[in-house]
Amino acid sequence: MKYNAVALTQLIEQFASLPGIGMKTAQRLAYHVLSMTNEQAKAFSDAVLKAHETIKNCRICQNFTDEETCPICGDTGRDRSIICVVESPKDVDAFERTREYNGLYHVLHGLISPMDGIGPEQLYVKELLTRVAGDEVKEVVMATNPTVEGEATAVYLARLLKPLGVKVSRLAYGIPVGADLEYADEVTLFKALENRNEI
Amino acid sequence: MKYNAVALTQLIEQFASLPGIGMKTAQRLAYHVLSMTNEQAKAFSDAVLKAHETIKNCRICQNFTDEETCPICGDTGRDRSIICVVESPKDVDAFERTREYNGLYHVLHGLISPMDGIGPEQLYVKELLTRVAGDEVKEVVMATNPTVEGEATAVYLARLLKPLGVKVSRLAYGIPVGADLEYADEVTLFKALENRNEI
Repeated sequence: MKYNAVALTQLIEQFASLPGIGMKTAQRLAYHVLSMTNEQAKAFSDAVLKAHETIKNCRICQNFTDEETCPICGDTGRDRSIICVVESPKDVDAFERTREYNGLYHVLHGLISPMDGIGPEQLYVKELLTRVAGDEVKEVVMATNPTVEGEATAVYLARLLKPLGVKVSRLAYGIPVGADLEYADEVTLFKALENRNEI
Repeated sequence: MKYNAVALTQLIEQFASLPGIGMKTAQRLAYHVLSMTNEQAKAFSDAVLKAHETIKNCRICQNFTDEETCPICGDTGRDRSIICVVESPKDVDAFERTREYNGLYHVLHGLISPMDGIGPEQLYVKELLTRVAGDEVKEVVMATNPTVEGEATAVYLARLLKPLGVKVSRLAYGIPVGADLEYADEVTLFKALENRNEI
């Protein structure tokens, strides 16, 4: 694409650097930006800057917020005795969508992954321990992803938390609701069988 | 997602307004922006603004460029007797990737589509007629998409161009290279049979 203008090439490259966006999609998005009105392009550009400038981590749970304390931590109607530990703010959204969980969260902003050189000190582990030690916390739910890194992080944190005298639990493994048994993998099916409940 | 900060919600909405980007992807992209360094976020925001400000249509072929005349129209090594008429700048890139076409282009920036209220006056048709009338043009290739709108636009333009004494041609229909005949639709297969070539 040597015939493309520099500014266009740069915009395409910027879009292509986003996760899950390939060259073709980046090109389509860049062309869409060019077809915007001046106000729309300004609004888009500003939204990027403003979000990046104003969004910080909540002082307590480390979730993204534009205030000192996020609305969840500041909500007096929520159960402060239970903390759900997640990898990223996306996971908080996922739990909030269930509309069933009424406790607090703690966002690690990553998982322990020696392969990528990420140890506990790069995550918000210390902050979690301080919360659990000082607060009225009774239970900590490990809600990291069911991957090798998610498991390792959950086990690591459980070992640190148990001496503090709280109950540490882990999300249940099993078959997803609406799934087809035929396509379930062996490990999941075994876990579902192992953790079967009486009806 | 009522617990999200305003600036974050706005950024997600901005991403979601881009073509082909759903809410989930928009969320993922927004979170990625938050994880950028200040410099990266600034570069991304600037690329949007700069592209929108500096990119304009080429005076001659209406392709995107940051100069008065685009590098293709300014290239003296290209065959100025043939013009390939396309719907959008994306199509110019597609032809350039073939590395076989050495003529010029004309970008319509749309197709005639009465359903969407787009007539010839909204497209760069007048500019094409001026080029064909005044230039050393011998042939105009209609390279609009093989859709109803693309066909209608090609036929409409051909009717305007023929009186100017130029040859007007259309891209060949046929089976795509590497395709499986079994999966070819009837119309394409019929066109491929109809336009068969002696070997």
